Formats: sequence, structure tokens, C-alpha cells
Amino acid sequence: MIEEIKIRRSIRKYLNRPVEDEKIIQLVESARLAPSGSNTQPWHFIIVKSELIKQKLAKVSHNQQWMISAPVFIVCVADIRCRIAKNVDILIKEDSPQEELKQIIRDTSISISYMLLEANSLGLGTCWVGWFIQEEIRPILNIPSDKYVVGIITLGYANEAPETRPRKKLEEIVHYESW
Amino acid sequence: MIEEIKIRRSIRKYLNRPVEDEKIIQLVESARLAPSGSNTQPWHFIIVKSELIKQKLAKVSHNQQWMISAPVFIVCVADIRCRIAKNVDILIKEDSPQEELKQIIRDTSISISYMLLEANSLGLGTCWVGWFIQEEIRPILNIPSDKYVVGIITLGYANEAPETRPRKKLEEIVHYESW
Repeated sequence: MIEEIKIRRSIRKYLNRPVEDEKIIQLVESARLAPSGSNTQPWHFIIVKSELIKQKLAKVSHNQQWMISAPVFIVCVADIRCRIAKNVDILIKEDSPQEELKQIIRDTSISISYMLLEANSLGLGTCWVGWFIQEEIRPILNIPSDKYVVGIITLGYANEAPETRPRKKLEEIVHYESW
Repeated sequence: MIEEIKIRRSIRKYLNRPVEDEKIIQLVESARLAPSGSNTQPWHFIIVKSELIKQKLAKVSHNQQWMISAPVFIVCVADIRCRIAKNVDILIKEDSPQEELKQIIRDTSISISYMLLEANSLGLGTCWVGWFIQEEIRPILNIPSDKYVVGIITLGYANEAPETRPRKKLEEIVHYESW
């Protein structure tokens, strides 16, 4: 398992080669099986192949043009309605304070993590893009204002083999019995 | 990879058998290698074996006594200082609004996900406990008020084999080209 983790890289250059639909479904299937707080499963996944929509998404992601080379985007959305009743009005923004928002971001992040490792084991490259504003991204995909886009995953066959990026040393992040 | 995901369960009953230190280190190592936004690596891990501290942590976790049977807790902490300067005063609570808090919860959740899958592949059981209040848990471990505890992972050899919990159907969570 740790070998899969070690070889995973964020990929920002993709081959001009489509991704098989059955592989895309297997990715979402691995995300579907993830654990979540009280088994609430707040996650939704929007599969995007349209060039026009991909361009719009790249544009609101600070115009990261490298994204376009990925044949597929998977837009990962967290739904707060698994924790807050439908009759309560909510407009979610980057600085919204709700604890429930933190919980659904946590849980959707677990499912995306699973998806990325699964992609790796299927020979696919991914990059988790998180640099956008909710109010710019939601209209492109008709996402309601009570949802939160946790990430856009670019997906395809890698056309680069990046080096490992540095990590903190183990002793910088491990504590025993107390902070 | 999806097989590892399929067989993972949350474990709430543990054998009275210690966990090898080298396995604990391998878990943190797998978390250390996780990706994070701008490679900020906001994660810290506090390894707890002390019975007294475990009891205190279970107590603030709504007195979930089952937790005590796990020989090890790994308390997973997100540090906002990778994104906000040290001279800015911050007291983080459940309803804090900062966007940076959402980013470090996201990134620390990725690293915890990796750790849980790695535990599974090492034959260890885990459960991600998230039901506690920051201001009650931080004093137990001397965690500063600008950190956020994302989860307590209970860790040990499983003494139960729970059934799969139900998941939403694929068609309930997958969308094509738009919400």
C-alpha cells in the first residue's frame, strides 16, 4: 500500500488519449466506498469531458491552462444537506463558519483521496486543483449555492514523470503523548 | 487498490495486543507522503499510548468507552500557520470562518485517509473519531489554540469483523457535464 502512496505524483501534462469510461466509473466507485462521519456520504462527482466546460473551469481556476490537456475533469462537490435541513437557507462561501461545512469538506476529501490512489493504480494521472472561488465555479455547472466544490480533479494518461516533491521530516510532524 | 478500499471497515473492538512501533511509524510515514495544497503539509500526529490520556480523550469524545480498548490513539492535528503568519492571533473553534482552516482540514484529511488505508494493509484496525470540541480536547494534549484537531484515530488489532455499511448508489452521486 505504501508503495502506491510513494509513486503517486500530481500530473499537469497529459497525453492526447481518452480515458476509458469503465476506468472513470471505477474511480467514482472507489470514492463511493469511502468512510464518512456518521456514514453521511456528502460527496457528489461531476464528470466533465466537454472542451467548452473544461475551458471555463480552467479560466476560473486562475487560468491554469495546463488543465485543458486533461481529457476528463472530475468536479468533487460536498453537500451540506446531509447535516442541515433543507428548509434552512444557506449560501456557502469560502469564509462560511458552519461546523457542518468543515465536516463535509473532511469527508469529501477522504473520498477524493481514495479516488486519486485508485487512479494511480489504474495507470492514470491526476491533479487536485483547489484554487478557485465558489461563486465563480458554481454557475458553470449549475451547482446550487448550498454546495461546496472541494476540488477539480484533472484526469488522464500522464505525459510527464515529475520528481518527488520534498516533504517535512518525520520528526517534524510526530509527537509522543503530547504536543 | 480498490480491493483495499473494499475491505476497510471502522473497528471499534480491539484485541489486547500492542501495536509494533515500526508499524506505527510506517502509518505516519504514509501520511507524511500525502499531497497537500501548495505542498504546505499542515499535518501533525500525536501518538498516545498512555491509559490516562486515552481515558481523557475518550471522555471528551462523548464518553465513547469503546475507544479505550485500542492500544494506540493517533491524534491528527492541522496547523494553520502554514498559511497564516505567526504574528496574527488566532483562536480556532468549530465555527471559525477562515478559508485557510478549510484548506488545512482538507489536506490533513488526505493524509489521514492514506494512514487508514495503510493500517488496513498492515492488518491493523482503525476508527476515525471526530465527535469532540476543540476547546475540550486541546488542553489534554497541550495543543495551542491556533491548531485544529481533525480526528482521533483509534488503532489496534481488530477484535470484530463488522459488516459493510450501506452506501448510496453510484447514480445518486454521479453527474455528467453539469449538476
